[in-house]
Amino acid sequence: MMIKNITNVRGIQCWGAHTGVKSLRRDLAIIYSDVPASAAAVFTQNQVVAAPVTVSKKHIKDGKAQAIVINSGNANAATGEQGMEGAEAMAQTLADELKIDKEMVLVSSTGVIGEPFPTEEIIKGIKENVSKLSTNSNAGSFVANAILTTDTFAKEGFVEFELDGYEVNLGGIAKGSGMIHPNMATMLAFIVTDLAIDPKLLQKMVKKAVNKTFNMITVDGDTSTNDMVVVLANGKANNKELKSNKDVGFKKFEEQLEEMMTHLAQQIVSDGEGASKYIEYEMVNAKSEHIARTLIRAISTSSLVKTAMFGRDPNWGRIISAAGNAGVPFNYENIVLYLGSEEEILKVLNKGKPEKYDRNYMKKLLRESHIKIKIDMNEGKAKAKGWGTDLTTDYVLFNSVYTT
Amino acid sequence: MMIKNITNVRGIQCWGAHTGVKSLRRDLAIIYSDVPASAAAVFTQNQVVAAPVTVSKKHIKDGKAQAIVINSGNANAATGEQGMEGAEAMAQTLADELKIDKEMVLVSSTGVIGEPFPTEEIIKGIKENVSKLSTNSNAGSFVANAILTTDTFAKEGFVEFELDGYEVNLGGIAKGSGMIHPNMATMLAFIVTDLAIDPKLLQKMVKKAVNKTFNMITVDGDTSTNDMVVVLANGKANNKELKSNKDVGFKKFEEQLEEMMTHLAQQIVSDGEGASKYIEYEMVNAKSEHIARTLIRAISTSSLVKTAMFGRDPNWGRIISAAGNAGVPFNYENIVLYLGSEEEILKVLNKGKPEKYDRNYMKKLLRESHIKIKIDMNEGKAKAKGWGTDLTTDYVLFNSVYTT
Repeated sequence: MMIKNITNVRGIQCWGAHTGVKSLRRDLAIIYSDVPASAAAVFTQNQVVAAPVTVSKKHIKDGKAQAIVINSGNANAATGEQGMEGAEAMAQTLADELKIDKEMVLVSSTGVIGEPFPTEEIIKGIKENVSKLSTNSNAGSFVANAILTTDTFAKEGFVEFELDGYEVNLGGIAKGSGMIHPNMATMLAFIVTDLAIDPKLLQKMVKKAVNKTFNMITVDGDTSTNDMVVVLANGKANNKELKSNKDVGFKKFEEQLEEMMTHLAQQIVSDGEGASKYIEYEMVNAKSEHIARTLIRAISTSSLVKTAMFGRDPNWGRIISAAGNAGVPFNYENIVLYLGSEEEILKVLNKGKPEKYDRNYMKKLLRESHIKIKIDMNEGKAKAKGWGTDLTTDYVLFNSVYTT
Repeated sequence: MMIKNITNVRGIQCWGAHTGVKSLRRDLAIIYSDVPASAAAVFTQNQVVAAPVTVSKKHIKDGKAQAIVINSGNANAATGEQGMEGAEAMAQTLADELKIDKEMVLVSSTGVIGEPFPTEEIIKGIKENVSKLSTNSNAGSFVANAILTTDTFAKEGFVEFELDGYEVNLGGIAKGSGMIHPNMATMLAFIVTDLAIDPKLLQKMVKKAVNKTFNMITVDGDTSTNDMVVVLANGKANNKELKSNKDVGFKKFEEQLEEMMTHLAQQIVSDGEGASKYIEYEMVNAKSEHIARTLIRAISTSSLVKTAMFGRDPNWGRIISAAGNAGVPFNYENIVLYLGSEEEILKVLNKGKPEKYDRNYMKKLLRESHIKIKIDMNEGKAKAKGWGTDLTTDYVLFNSVYTT
């Protein structure tokens, strides 16, 4: 059976290898486009920024990139000058090996914070593995696995679609388990496509899509020092370059990109170890998208809502109270609230008045591992979705393990 | 042995009774000043506001109040019109019984959200108990207990001090256990003094002190629909009324009030059931007080920091990363971080560089139930303190109990 992944995007070669930073699993990934690509990225909002984020921000400024090198096992964060030299050396080494400009290389790291960066092993690994870059789908799997830390499965997506008569390929990988050892649980996503698109337009599109997808998942409510979403578009599909949001095909690609990010984001939530439930939040008829997203984030990060879901408790007072803490205006007497499983939701609150429902049946629905919470604000037309987990005793145990 | 409490403030009478809203414990409290008092208050920031909060906000607008009636067992939140009528009836009934204006009565409730409000029982309780109002210290204890919900002990404070030649008394009670069933764990505090002070000046002082005390404790990171801090100052100490922050005695009273609030706030944190540790945060040399408080709040509410403390893990990366998420600027390479117990702290991070310390000794320090985290920002002169708990498996279990 052939598996399609990022290697099915024209011009993309990759490899994932083991350098020894992690004891057994692959810990080095290289993604390479054989022609320069339009590049767009969104980086962590954390005030403490890892060295590779600083380097990548600098290198992507011109909207162009051709290769990405990622190591796992060490985050290269809180590593000072030694770490910055390591991140620069990663870019320089890969550039030398590929005979491209150093500025065409993006760098990414994930793993433990505050440990000296193992520059030597990683440089050696890059030199040894560039010759192995391949378009074989196994190479794509190696890369998807090499960027993992505490993740329990590799997160991948691939889709091909027609755009204005041209066949376009879009593939992506992501990591992030979030729940256990979250210092090592940076969220990373690398997406490649052979579409031709202007880098400025791509950047706008990526930022918007990240806000609706990766920024709407929550496991801990924390962002790491290393978070990074990168999209490379190398133009090998030969379509007329998209330059404006009025161009034919813009809307189609925007939808496909958002769908890819949603897919990868949902996989990250699914891998929340220590979680017993996957919770989908849907808000409709809010005053604005900003309000809808802010409310969903407040509800989905509330420890009280999350423990209630762990306990299968239809405790809607906690949902309303968490929304009230979000710092955005709404009138609670307009809210209609539904709760249940992926298949069926029951109305529990109707414009300020508790709704009578079958409590035994609700109990049955909340036993499911996929929970759905739907909130109708009745105050406008905006909507948003979000995805999160419950808060379990396992989460606390995993995260309290004495690691030093 | 005589215990001094709010009944030792001149002119203050009170009573705490059982009306039947709670099955066994006292559930109704009345505090009365025999003369009108300057009144100041801070209310919940939650968008969803309980009926008694709405009524009290209205009644305190003129800066005057003479009585407070508090019920526990039902929060009168998300109760619609029926609840609003109940809160108004509480004020009206007490006013009639005391023969004072309805607007001189403040109303407060704590308990379950979203249940019909038991107006009848409470009205009956008020009528039956006004005649019992007393200056006996037992009455003070009854009141301190009658406002509790899931708290495991009553929180009280009392101090007498000299101000400009006059003896002033200051007493307070509070509730809030925070950890278990936090829908019922509203934070309430009622403070009375016989000082003479202008209500506008008192309001400013109360707001400032609340920001430094009650607003710096965290158990869940949530504010409830009912949170309320009220201060009554009835002037019976006969001092010359404080009217400006330049008046003799202003500074002294401000310090005493802040100390009282700190004491009550610390008691609330100590009662965090499900918590195994009491954590004290101290920040020094921050750029501004706002930044210091924002950083402490971000660190003390981080699930990752809290689980690490539960696990006795000196995982300073989580502290730095949580600070980085606070959304205020700082340079992590300036930070000197200390970690340990109440008695002794060890340096773990020195201006961006991990500090070598005795790990076995640290392990021993972190076994203590009182943990201290000190953060020297080295960027200015502002400082702040905060108090919080760890996140334990017990917390999750308590909060996931199926309650319906």
